[in-house]
Amino acid sequence: MTDLALTIPALHAAYAAGTPVARVVEQVYDRIAEVGDPAIFITLIPQDEVLAAAMALGPYDPTRPLWGVPFAVKDNIDVAGCPTTAACPAFAYMADQDAFVVAKLKAAGALCIGKTNLDQFATGLVGVRSPYGVPVNALDAAIVPGGSSAGSAVAVAQGIVTLALGTDTAGSGRVPAALNNIVGLKPSLGALSATGVVPACRSIETVSIFGLTVQDAWRAYQVACTYDPGDAFARPFAAPDLSPAPTVLKVGIPSPESIRFFGDMVQSASFDAAVNILRASVAVIVEVDFAPLYAVAAMLYDGAWVAERYTVVEDLLKSDPEAILPVTRKIIGKAESLTAADAFRGMYRLKELARLAEPALAGLDLLCVPTIPKFYTVQDLKDDPVTPNSNFGTYTNFVNLLNMCGLAVPTPARSDGRPGGVTLLAKAGQDHLLASVALRLEAAGDRTLGATQWPVVQQPLLSDAPADTITIAVCGAHMSGLPLNHELVSRGATFAGTARTRADYRFIALPGGPPYRPGLIRVAPGAGGEIALELWAMPLACFGSFMQTIPAPLGIGTVQLSDGSSVFGFICESQAAEGALDITDLADWRKFLLRSGIAQ
Amino acid sequence: MTDLALTIPALHAAYAAGTPVARVVEQVYDRIAEVGDPAIFITLIPQDEVLAAAMALGPYDPTRPLWGVPFAVKDNIDVAGCPTTAACPAFAYMADQDAFVVAKLKAAGALCIGKTNLDQFATGLVGVRSPYGVPVNALDAAIVPGGSSAGSAVAVAQGIVTLALGTDTAGSGRVPAALNNIVGLKPSLGALSATGVVPACRSIETVSIFGLTVQDAWRAYQVACTYDPGDAFARPFAAPDLSPAPTVLKVGIPSPESIRFFGDMVQSASFDAAVNILRASVAVIVEVDFAPLYAVAAMLYDGAWVAERYTVVEDLLKSDPEAILPVTRKIIGKAESLTAADAFRGMYRLKELARLAEPALAGLDLLCVPTIPKFYTVQDLKDDPVTPNSNFGTYTNFVNLLNMCGLAVPTPARSDGRPGGVTLLAKAGQDHLLASVALRLEAAGDRTLGATQWPVVQQPLLSDAPADTITIAVCGAHMSGLPLNHELVSRGATFAGTARTRADYRFIALPGGPPYRPGLIRVAPGAGGEIALELWAMPLACFGSFMQTIPAPLGIGTVQLSDGSSVFGFICESQAAEGALDITDLADWRKFLLRSGIAQ
Repeated sequence: MTDLALTIPALHAAYAAGTPVARVVEQVYDRIAEVGDPAIFITLIPQDEVLAAAMALGPYDPTRPLWGVPFAVKDNIDVAGCPTTAACPAFAYMADQDAFVVAKLKAAGALCIGKTNLDQFATGLVGVRSPYGVPVNALDAAIVPGGSSAGSAVAVAQGIVTLALGTDTAGSGRVPAALNNIVGLKPSLGALSATGVVPACRSIETVSIFGLTVQDAWRAYQVACTYDPGDAFARPFAAPDLSPAPTVLKVGIPSPESIRFFGDMVQSASFDAAVNILRASVAVIVEVDFAPLYAVAAMLYDGAWVAERYTVVEDLLKSDPEAILPVTRKIIGKAESLTAADAFRGMYRLKELARLAEPALAGLDLLCVPTIPKFYTVQDLKDDPVTPNSNFGTYTNFVNLLNMCGLAVPTPARSDGRPGGVTLLAKAGQDHLLASVALRLEAAGDRTLGATQWPVVQQPLLSDAPADTITIAVCGAHMSGLPLNHELVSRGATFAGTARTRADYRFIALPGGPPYRPGLIRVAPGAGGEIALELWAMPLACFGSFMQTIPAPLGIGTVQLSDGSSVFGFICESQAAEGALDITDLADWRKFLLRSGIAQ
Repeated sequence: MTDLALTIPALHAAYAAGTPVARVVEQVYDRIAEVGDPAIFITLIPQDEVLAAAMALGPYDPTRPLWGVPFAVKDNIDVAGCPTTAACPAFAYMADQDAFVVAKLKAAGALCIGKTNLDQFATGLVGVRSPYGVPVNALDAAIVPGGSSAGSAVAVAQGIVTLALGTDTAGSGRVPAALNNIVGLKPSLGALSATGVVPACRSIETVSIFGLTVQDAWRAYQVACTYDPGDAFARPFAAPDLSPAPTVLKVGIPSPESIRFFGDMVQSASFDAAVNILRASVAVIVEVDFAPLYAVAAMLYDGAWVAERYTVVEDLLKSDPEAILPVTRKIIGKAESLTAADAFRGMYRLKELARLAEPALAGLDLLCVPTIPKFYTVQDLKDDPVTPNSNFGTYTNFVNLLNMCGLAVPTPARSDGRPGGVTLLAKAGQDHLLASVALRLEAAGDRTLGATQWPVVQQPLLSDAPADTITIAVCGAHMSGLPLNHELVSRGATFAGTARTRADYRFIALPGGPPYRPGLIRVAPGAGGEIALELWAMPLACFGSFMQTIPAPLGIGTVQLSDGSSVFGFICESQAAEGALDITDLADWRKFLLRSGIAQ
């Protein structure tokens, strides 16, 4: 394929170099013809309409983050002027407004080219439950495309569009990403507005984003993540620029006793390899018993949440049941026998199961799981429409019930050539942490994007420091093993390395104690010593209470490091040096403690 | 009444002075006999058993916060060795363990003396729906005691016990407090464990605390507020020592168009007087349209939450319906016709109504409402068992549905002698703010406690500074009207006054700018000037991000004030003084700006 790569950086570089947007629009429609899969789109917007929208953007504007970026929209999300079908012709209605999220993407310069196929009413993880046909998996026609956001995932993987919107209750934004070698970002519940979306399970679902790369998906998320007061389930979340992942993370993975691959040992080996990438770069790996999480997952269909789907289709189910696919009707119809008391009992049970899962998750920064435990073919689904669908949800079904965010990211190909992929999971609001860590996984090995020949190109990060921690240099009683270290640790601070000051500091032993404490006093350049420091990264929200523990003559200011950089850290008022013991020559508080025989 | 006042400070003073705990136990039982109301307690623990428990406490131990403090427990909360009836004999079971909260109070030295009467299954706000009789209102036998925690409230108001536990879904911890001139603390949902409590509406209820004073109730809350991992609905909350209320609060009250008194104009006048107390002390009063809150309140019985009550009594309702009072049966029986889809539709509606209520509540620190809109007599309830109950919930029913905390506090008596009272409401986790503000309301006017002759005695607060803000002294560009003031204001910091440093500081104008900035450098006592400062109180959680805006040579440390106290504030490394302009003689950054003609 000699086409222009459709990643946002590649597109924007091309636009900046003079490539006309019309050429990209043309490429999109040429590629659709080339792929020749009539089941990807339920509604394709005519090329001339998209071209007109592209022309209306005016000259290339690098300040619009999605300028000239083609995208597709799952057909349970409104696009003005297109029918919204939810893959059920009898349910279809004409949308007269864009969904909130679609409007956001368009306002940032993105070009919508059509509405994609899905498992009817977003009920399914396989992508074969649609009267509009089955989209062909972008990598291997034998395997299922995955669902419910099947068309969206395939459109991205085939290099037709840069981005596509999906939705995700049980895993519809993650499973098809894994099956098509692309990124699937399932944001924290409430981060993306549901205004203009046909709900499946309104209380536990979200719009999701497919992209060829983590950065592309994140860019779209930053554009779309705007609090929508019109959506009663919306919650305000920040979508900061990505920063490097923290140097040490605790990552939970399923224990050997509880991990499930349903016999797919190639998938098992691929997962081990992905975990090793994490282990080598950022993570302390912790094995976690997943039994409580599987118990939560079972609530999704055994609990009362299926009644949420029922509220959406009740009228149609009563007036024209044959209009709904038998498999879908059977799943949703279960709600008819459930009482309100059953619904509350289900919620109680979920709360209890979530509580049981807490100890296993406590202290972890994130979880890493296989996105899917096993690959299934289209034939497998014909033989048994239920079990493969159910197994696909092994590592996805519990996520929204536990209010976690998730990001499915490709990893190096399996030994049999099928795509590797894992999902990172974290507590609500930690989406940026997932994306930061996913960048490292995405960069590993020798991969191309989706089903294209476009290589992975790592972009420089937009920001250098985690936005939500503050690194503090300590030079005395706060260092590891010394009496005030607990003031750091109890506030969630983590050790981030050692350093030395520039040779611009006097180092003194303050009178008083225990605890015995030194002071660091700035002097003229070169007139002092290079004092030994420890660096600790503290959650920003805890810093205020840490400040309250610091007595005069100490304070927090800027400390210059020997490598020319600077950090926040302890400083000392120079007035305190009068009569204090100067220990600049030792340049290390622990050496002073040793020499003076102070047991701490 | 010449008895010992049963407030915790009075009891502990007496114990410290040598009063034996046996004397207090005797007073409790004498008082029960004196009151002579057989409907307060469903189970009264024999005096000798309580005496034995008191003796087992050993000598007075002031480190146990509830040492020798008598308390009662609503009879839907387990006390080991007592039956738990929920006011339904056919439902009763023998409890073999204390409820989590009861165990906490006992472990702190409190003495349980019995189980109190309630509206059956905590369903009602009137206190007359019990087969165990109607507790007599402690102040006026003609009016209802209020419910559902009727016996608990009356026992406290009659001076029988210091504290009593209740539960609160619709207002059961607040309405009876108002009717009996005592304090009713309804904590944030999840703050107090529900382990060992017969639920009414498990997802939206809490154990509550009745006390004669705010400080007593708060003391019990501090003891009881411990995260219980065994309760799936528990959430971790802090229960800090009380501190003075912030100097300026925005308090919402019902607008004249939306306030409801159902014709009780004496109550209306009493509420106005209470609001004036707030206005005079701490509050900016904002009128709020309560229509969206009333719409939320209506969901409590019109929505599907009644199905939560049904899950508790389903077996009994099916096996022996006559065992349940007709009024209770009718309310809970409604759940039989509700489907799971109805339950979810109810939740959606609640979310939407809550969203509609948000604009009115945005920017407010708390709400102040009448606890009850009107007084009703026992006769009123005989004439119409529904309307008074419903009206009692006017200002209480929406609170748990919106996940707010509440505190009902007595205010000066109404012009007709009936007790005045308001409820303060705030977002979950703001319980301590409610208690701090309630202290001011409680102290106003000339009141006695409950139905006793014990006067209100204000205790000194346990802590002098709000635990969740940090006061920062600024001396330069952060002062009001200067270019960096927004760094304070945008973080929610509020102006807290002006001050001067001790005469121990050099004051310099730093090179560079704009913004132009000074530095404060500590020198020997008396060797500097008294530099003009502004003090700003910043939410502690925002301080870390504020720190990140501070460049070298500035830092945050301790600044000594001319009155001998000290605060955190800007300090400056002395090295920066080399070549800088010394402006110690001006001692005021604004004077320097004026003199140097710098327009900021």
